[in-house]
Amino acid sequence: MDLFEAIAKRHSYRGPFTDARVPRDDLRKIVQAGIQAPSACNEQVAQFVIVDDPKILKQIAQIVNRPVCETAPAMIVCLTDNRPVFKDIAFPAEDCAASVENMLLAITAMGYASVWLDGVLRIGDVASQIGRLLGVPDEFEIRILLPVGVAAELGTQREKLPFERRAWFDRYGKVT
Amino acid sequence: MDLFEAIAKRHSYRGPFTDARVPRDDLRKIVQAGIQAPSACNEQVAQFVIVDDPKILKQIAQIVNRPVCETAPAMIVCLTDNRPVFKDIAFPAEDCAASVENMLLAITAMGYASVWLDGVLRIGDVASQIGRLLGVPDEFEIRILLPVGVAAELGTQREKLPFERRAWFDRYGKVT
Repeated sequence: MDLFEAIAKRHSYRGPFTDARVPRDDLRKIVQAGIQAPSACNEQVAQFVIVDDPKILKQIAQIVNRPVCETAPAMIVCLTDNRPVFKDIAFPAEDCAASVENMLLAITAMGYASVWLDGVLRIGDVASQIGRLLGVPDEFEIRILLPVGVAAELGTQREKLPFERRAWFDRYGKVT
Repeated sequence: MDLFEAIAKRHSYRGPFTDARVPRDDLRKIVQAGIQAPSACNEQVAQFVIVDDPKILKQIAQIVNRPVCETAPAMIVCLTDNRPVFKDIAFPAEDCAASVENMLLAITAMGYASVWLDGVLRIGDVASQIGRLLGVPDEFEIRILLPVGVAAELGTQREKLPFERRAWFDRYGKVT
């Protein structure tokens, strides 16, 4: 799929998934897109646990408690190492987000749907429960969860503010 | 350009740019790709000042003091609003990074080159100097700078760790 078509079609899908499985080759291709994202000083601190075991999927769905997780045939759990990589600064959120955006575009181009689940992992000990379930060492942080599957319902990208409300040439807020 | 080709070709370019200008229509198309990125609760807190005025470009290059900025015919300055959007949580880094990744892919697909400058803006008061120069209100934070132009030298994506070092199925570190 053309890049700009993928960017325009990507949307946050929160509906049910069909029964179709996501082949491991497809999951690998999606995560490989995430691996190829830029990272601060190329330190590649973002890592991924790809879940397609139905028993584990069910356990995660129970922990996260969001409808979109209940029927997801696969999930990509994104975690980061918070160590500093440039002077004393760490970039876990940036690195993870860049990988996730690549993966969301790949998911779209391959005919699947997903949604970026993030804030919900920060409620109570949701993130650490998922980490323990997947054997993630304590020094890493579970940041983002992507349920992946074939959408059972149609979805479109939510409306975005017009260019003029978010971007300007040469000076903030300048009308051109 | 095909999405996966853009993902594979995107690389951090730190060399000189040619004298070719970047037309405003192209800059708009690049930033529109950033606008279409996902954002927490669709609050769209990332904003962009696109600089192509040679005088302002020169001033930013002096502030940032990185060779790649010296010959850039355009720069995209990415800023965010740090207000909470989900419970008491703000996602400025995530939102900005997702937009930047879309823009880097668009830049690649359109035959331009760029590099994600981030940590360098956090040295001393570099970010606030740029903000003052562009008239950015104090409540926003300058986070990322993308110089944009036609590369004068060849570049390729830096080597990434193999899949097996960054991703696993069903359990962290599990050999499959």
